[in-house]
Amino acid sequence: MQGRVRSLLWADGKLKLIDQTKLPITFEVVECTTYQEVGDAIRSMKVRGAPAIGATAAFGVALGALEHRNDHPADFVAAMDAICGELAATRPTAVNLFWALERMRKVVESRKGERVASIVAALVAEAEAIAAEDVETCQRIGAAGAALIPDGAGVLTICNAGALATVDYGTALGVVRAACEAGRDFHVYAAETRPFLQGARLTAWELVEENIPATLITDNMAGWVMQQGRIQVVIVGADRIARNGDTANKIGTYTFAVLAHHHQIPFYVAAPLSTVDLALPSGEQIPIEERPAEEVTHVFGQQVAPKGIHAYNPAFDVTPAQLISGIITEVGVIRPPFTINLGKAFESA
Amino acid sequence: MQGRVRSLLWADGKLKLIDQTKLPITFEVVECTTYQEVGDAIRSMKVRGAPAIGATAAFGVALGALEHRNDHPADFVAAMDAICGELAATRPTAVNLFWALERMRKVVESRKGERVASIVAALVAEAEAIAAEDVETCQRIGAAGAALIPDGAGVLTICNAGALATVDYGTALGVVRAACEAGRDFHVYAAETRPFLQGARLTAWELVEENIPATLITDNMAGWVMQQGRIQVVIVGADRIARNGDTANKIGTYTFAVLAHHHQIPFYVAAPLSTVDLALPSGEQIPIEERPAEEVTHVFGQQVAPKGIHAYNPAFDVTPAQLISGIITEVGVIRPPFTINLGKAFESA
Repeated sequence: MQGRVRSLLWADGKLKLIDQTKLPITFEVVECTTYQEVGDAIRSMKVRGAPAIGATAAFGVALGALEHRNDHPADFVAAMDAICGELAATRPTAVNLFWALERMRKVVESRKGERVASIVAALVAEAEAIAAEDVETCQRIGAAGAALIPDGAGVLTICNAGALATVDYGTALGVVRAACEAGRDFHVYAAETRPFLQGARLTAWELVEENIPATLITDNMAGWVMQQGRIQVVIVGADRIARNGDTANKIGTYTFAVLAHHHQIPFYVAAPLSTVDLALPSGEQIPIEERPAEEVTHVFGQQVAPKGIHAYNPAFDVTPAQLISGIITEVGVIRPPFTINLGKAFESA
Repeated sequence: MQGRVRSLLWADGKLKLIDQTKLPITFEVVECTTYQEVGDAIRSMKVRGAPAIGATAAFGVALGALEHRNDHPADFVAAMDAICGELAATRPTAVNLFWALERMRKVVESRKGERVASIVAALVAEAEAIAAEDVETCQRIGAAGAALIPDGAGVLTICNAGALATVDYGTALGVVRAACEAGRDFHVYAAETRPFLQGARLTAWELVEENIPATLITDNMAGWVMQQGRIQVVIVGADRIARNGDTANKIGTYTFAVLAHHHQIPFYVAAPLSTVDLALPSGEQIPIEERPAEEVTHVFGQQVAPKGIHAYNPAFDVTPAQLISGIITEVGVIRPPFTINLGKAFESA
């Protein structure tokens, strides 16, 4: 894991992950050798970010396949089914998880009757393909979106949609990276993103590592920095996009979209097409994960609220399509009306 | 300091303050016996909240007067002038600080030529009067605003505009208390208010102490809880209100005002008339305090952001009058147009 940040690395039948709960204080690599460890890593948010979760889960299936490589064929297929089910239950909102597991299931399905060893090899190869494609997809997203950051712009982002949220390069931060590589002169405002502080901990860390000019703000400063004219474009990631363009992303995204609308600032979502859930007509059907209250009442284990206070902790919110200027994908920037234009994008992909 | 919370208590020539930087983890009382200690307490935010700062500074002058009670009259007047100047420099945004110091200066001015001992006694009496009036003013604000919280409402607030931000009872939380005393059934949503977490630490603490049904949220959840229909009214405090109604208050207030506007939710400011700065035609002239970056990069001393990241930390923002439905004062709820109606309120006060 030298050079640029890569959230995960597969080598010698083991999955290495940066423990993202420890950043930026310590850089620790977790080694997963079983699918259960992979499930735990996703649930506890050691690895997070929709595309990264997808690739990680795929490697989880690969690890499960290796564990079961000596099973009888029928047992192997049943085990793979159970493992995919278990990994799918780790987090409910990001669709890339289900998309990646579906790709793994299809490998098993299409190779039924083959020797177990060859299915295992195909599963490992598929997980590697998902990871490799993710890097390429992010680079294409970056290339497609770089022109949306004008020279001199202030770019506001929330959470971490960077290399750490993907296999490498990032979605929203992929666009930032591409604009930087293109020599564009701009400034990133990273919102800290309570309660889990992915902005302060992960995005700020990536920006410092890459020497991209940036300022960390608390989430509640977003309106004020817009009023001051410091922000020219908002770019965020996505955990699930409905067919009509409604977008589930980290809690706070909707607030930023309303603020951007009020200040007539363009608001972009950067995500691979694998984040689009064509089965959902609108965002109302997206399940929103509610996480433990302790993430709100405590920061890094330090209690910040009194005992006895009730806390609410939705991990995501849904931004209606009407507030979204465009969706930056690997096949280009998709503009409204999204139902039509996302459909066209899938045809061209 | 038993029974209901009182942020400060004057007894035996000493000022006792609850150390608000320690709440809710520990309840510590700080005893100030010099005006320098009072200045430090304001600067370090052991005491905060515009009305509380005003009353505290007045007691600071009283302590300074007691220290100088054996001075020659001319020296005493010069010392009081210097002390007022020093206390005025502790924090720049809240106007109640300057308003209270001005009342203290006038006592000195109007009694020039009297014996120093009698000026000292008058200064102590004036500080006590400011504190006593503040409690009464807050109760009147509560009475004026209680009807704005309908039965079944969700009430969103930010920062702490409670008993701890005043001498007792509170402004925005004074309205909440009055509605509660009137038997109204409602639910408070307290935004945690990064970076200093006054909502999580202080407002949540007051609400738990008073058994008022409440939920703590992170600041970036405000838009989402509004979209979900959980919020029927927003009530916030104020640090300075310009003649046209533009209001400086804790950072994040402006974001909430934009969100309320977007969701057609009424947005009220609760504040005594002493928070109105008639000298300022608009909010553009209000100086906004910028505090140390470490408040953003650290939480309770725990580092949460990488070394090398730049952070921005404005302590307040300005909400334009157009986004404010009304200002709840001790003489009633003032509606737009504020320039005219605030003027009338001062005439009637």
